[in-house]
Formats: sequence, structure tokens, C-alpha cells
Amino acid sequence: MTARDLSVDERLEHLSLNTATVREQGDLLAIVEAAKRHGISCLCPWRDQVEAVGLQSAVRAVREGGFRLSGYCRGGMFPAGSAHHAAMLDDNRRAIDEAAALGAPCLVLVVGGLPQFSRPGSAASKDIAGARAQVEDAIGALLDHADKADVPLAIEPLHPMYAADRACVNTLGQALDIGDRLDPDGSHRLGVAIDVYHVWWDPDLLDEIARAGKSRIHAFHICDWLVPTRDLLLDRGMMGDGVIDIRQLRAAVEAQGFTGPCEVEIFSEDWWSRPIDEVLATMTERYRTVC
Amino acid sequence: MTARDLSVDERLEHLSLNTATVREQGDLLAIVEAAKRHGISCLCPWRDQVEAVGLQSAVRAVREGGFRLSGYCRGGMFPAGSAHHAAMLDDNRRAIDEAAALGAPCLVLVVGGLPQFSRPGSAASKDIAGARAQVEDAIGALLDHADKADVPLAIEPLHPMYAADRACVNTLGQALDIGDRLDPDGSHRLGVAIDVYHVWWDPDLLDEIARAGKSRIHAFHICDWLVPTRDLLLDRGMMGDGVIDIRQLRAAVEAQGFTGPCEVEIFSEDWWSRPIDEVLATMTERYRTVC
Repeated sequence: MTARDLSVDERLEHLSLNTATVREQGDLLAIVEAAKRHGISCLCPWRDQVEAVGLQSAVRAVREGGFRLSGYCRGGMFPAGSAHHAAMLDDNRRAIDEAAALGAPCLVLVVGGLPQFSRPGSAASKDIAGARAQVEDAIGALLDHADKADVPLAIEPLHPMYAADRACVNTLGQALDIGDRLDPDGSHRLGVAIDVYHVWWDPDLLDEIARAGKSRIHAFHICDWLVPTRDLLLDRGMMGDGVIDIRQLRAAVEAQGFTGPCEVEIFSEDWWSRPIDEVLATMTERYRTVC
Repeated sequence: MTARDLSVDERLEHLSLNTATVREQGDLLAIVEAAKRHGISCLCPWRDQVEAVGLQSAVRAVREGGFRLSGYCRGGMFPAGSAHHAAMLDDNRRAIDEAAALGAPCLVLVVGGLPQFSRPGSAASKDIAGARAQVEDAIGALLDHADKADVPLAIEPLHPMYAADRACVNTLGQALDIGDRLDPDGSHRLGVAIDVYHVWWDPDLLDEIARAGKSRIHAFHICDWLVPTRDLLLDRGMMGDGVIDIRQLRAAVEAQGFTGPCEVEIFSEDWWSRPIDEVLATMTERYRTVC
């Protein structure tokens, strides 16, 4: 398999910062300034961070800073009780519009789990198959709006430990099945975001990456799996501190023709507690040495 | 699908207590006495608990108490550096012999993760595919001993959040693939232990249960998945307190002809902190009402 040599990527052309990685250290404008200091030229912002500074302000900061985007986080949270269904779709259409305004190459979809968790107030259910059907219906209902906005949707399979409350799409194969059913010919550019944290354990992963191919892979996210992992949500590791063979997975994705950046997304109370310049310096060094 | 009606199982004929559920409240002999008080007549003991009271003492307590066993926990932890390989196999052969002495109908295999975690002292590796190959090799090497001891082996797929450190077999399909390769005609009775906690999220689960069929299903473990889950290892829920549709999964297993008990296995600092009689009373009540 062919893979880019990141050790010589002095200009960090293939690195993106998912802004959740330093969300506790400052607002989006402060993160943009910090990224500039470290030579990072690609970002993936989160909706709540954009909202906090205002969409127009975020758009201006991205453009004036000369940043590219690797995606926009996030749409989704589809399973919803009937009283919440219309608002859920409206919310997702707004996310698509924001992604378009920012010039994001895709909207990442965290699809949601059981309805009582993905849209609080919805009636409680244990029907995960039903939640999965709701996910597929909602994505299907959004494709036209995404097409008009020219924002491809990227289904992100989440680790099975989030199946109940965050995403009931839990393997790459499952995400690709949805793509095959809703967009068999690829005309809607419905694809996937592959985050090594969520999928590294999957015995079918390399086969499914090959199945995805270039056209379905919209984003590639990296961090690491720590042993022990002390918290289900907020204990992701910096690349190199855990057990994931990131380079192997990157090579597999790049062998399919993926040319997008490695997007670093780390939810970690540890890294959130450190100065932003320490986090970004560590991240760029690890990008060149262990990814 | 046909399923037993547990609400009328006054004698708890289809209930088993995995003794780890109350491991902090007393030794195995105390657990046996408590089980008697609650009318529980089936157990699945753990090796360390047996060792603590002595194998002969454990055998006597089980026999004199008139208990059946639903399994013995556990063999496994197969991935090992070369310096640890022979000891790993010896250790597993002893586990098989202990299971035979106790009259257990199967030895549950928690297969282990990367070698540095499954057999500490082994060289560190990120090669999960290699660990999986080691698992399969080791199980193959143990089949003859298991046959001679008349103890079927039951591969337990563990939740993907344990892939690195506890078990790199993470789906029922993956466990069945190993069974198909090592024991295609079933003559070794190589099978699986299905624990709802580990597999409930799997979109292929019902299909894989059907694929397993009666001959491969050696054990059925129950507890619940809590939202939020506060600890990766020690925050399992009592049946009914979480999001797993236990009755649906039990019906699927029983539709294949499985006639073994529902074995309650709860690792929980919460439930370990409660009096043993409260835990067993709650467990038997939930067994009849929500399972």
C-alpha cells in the first residue's frame, strides 16, 4: 500500500485540527489564532463553537486566515419522537447550510442512538433496530438539501460503546450499507468519516475500507486508544500514546486514493487541561513521527 | 420466536448466578450458601474464587449443595510473547481440568487482547490481527485436551471496548468464524458464550445467533447496559436498569433450541457494595419480570 510520508510534510499540508481538540482552551477565534502560530492551515470546526462566535465571524476568520476545512461537525442525532421529528430535520438542514457557508467539504453525521438520548424528551425505547431505521430515513430525507447546498454528508460510525446514546451506526460496514441503499450510484456523494478511535478494533476494517473506496471516504480522523481508558467519552489519547496502528489505517485509506488531511480529534480532559500551544506542538510533532 | 416464560419459573430452573456478581461480598462458600437461601440452583464460578477456597472444597460445596453449573470462568488470555507461550497453554489446560472436576458444561474463554495486556511481560505490540491469529492457534492447540476432559470450549466475544486489553474477539460472527475454521463439523463442540452486554449493539447479532444455532451456543449471559456507563469495566447494570432488550435476545437464542440457563454476570462497584441478599433478591425478581 502507498502512503504519504508525513515526516517530510514541513508545511503540514495533510494535517487538520478538529477544533474540539482544544475546545476548553479558547473560543473558535482564539483557536484559529493558535493554529496560525503552529502552521496549521486546515480545520474542522464544531457547530457550538461556530455559534458561540457567530457564523459570519467564523466564516471571516476562516477566510482571512487562509484556512481550508476538512469538514464540519456535526449533523445527526436523528432518532426522535414524533414531536421532535420536524425540528430534528430543520436542525440538520441548518447544519448543512452552515457547512456550506463555511466552505466545508462535508458535514459529519453523528447519527444518534436511542431517541430518548439523541433527542431528549422523546419516549424511551430499547429498539435499536428501530433507531437505525430512523437514521436511514432521516439521511434519505436530507440528501436533496445537501445536494442543493453542495455539501456531501459523511456518516461517522461511532464505537459500539456509544450505540445507546450517541450513534447506533457502529461499524464502517454498516455505514457503507446505508450508503449503498440510499445512494447506490454515488450521485449524492453520501459517504463516511473514518475515525480510527471508533473503528480500529473491527476485524473487517481493512476489507471495509477497500469496499468504501475513494468516493465514499470523505474524512479521516485520528487520535489514539489508551489502555486503560478511564472515561468512555473524554479519555481519548494523543497519537502515539495508545495502541492503534494509525499508520497502517492511514495507508489503507490512502491506498484507496484518499487525499484529504489527517484530522486530529481528541476529546480528553487531560489534553483540555493543558495550554493550547503545548497541545498543538505535541500534535504536530506526533503527526510527523507516529502517524 | 418461542421463548420460555420466566415469570412462572418459581423454582428458578433457568437462572444461573455467575459468582463474580457478588465476588466482593464473600468467598465462594459464602456465595453458595447465599444462593441456597434464594433458591438458586445453578452457578458459574470463577477460577480465582475456586482457588481461594481450594478446588476440592469448591467441588464438595457444589455437589453437596445439589448445584448445577452453567460454565466455568475462565480460560483464555492467549496472546503471549514466546517466553510466556508454554505457561499460557499450561494455564489453560489446568483451567480445563478444573472445569472437568467441577462438572462444568463448558469453559468460557476470554481470549485476551494485545500480548502486553493479556500476558504481562510480553513485548508490546499494536498488531491486533496478529493477536487474533495467536488466539486461534491457541484454541486449536487446546481442543484435544478439552476433548479428553469432556469440557467444551466457549469463546466469549467481548465488547469492542475491551479489544486492546481483554479480548480481541469482539463480535459473535468473529467467534463463529473461528469455530467454523477449527471445528467445522462440530465434533470438538467448540462454541460460544453469548453475553448480551458485549453483543447487544451488533447490527448483525440476530443473524449471527441464527447462524450459531443450538450446537454452538454453550452459554447465555445477562446484565444490562447503563446510560451513562461510568466505568468501562465495573459499571454493568442489573437487568432492567439499562437499554438492552434482553427478552428479544433471549428469545432469539431460545429459538435456536438453547435450553441452558440465563446466567447473571454483573461487574459493578455499585452492586458489589450492596448486601449479598439484596443483590440476589433483586436479581431473581428482575429475572422473572424483565428477562
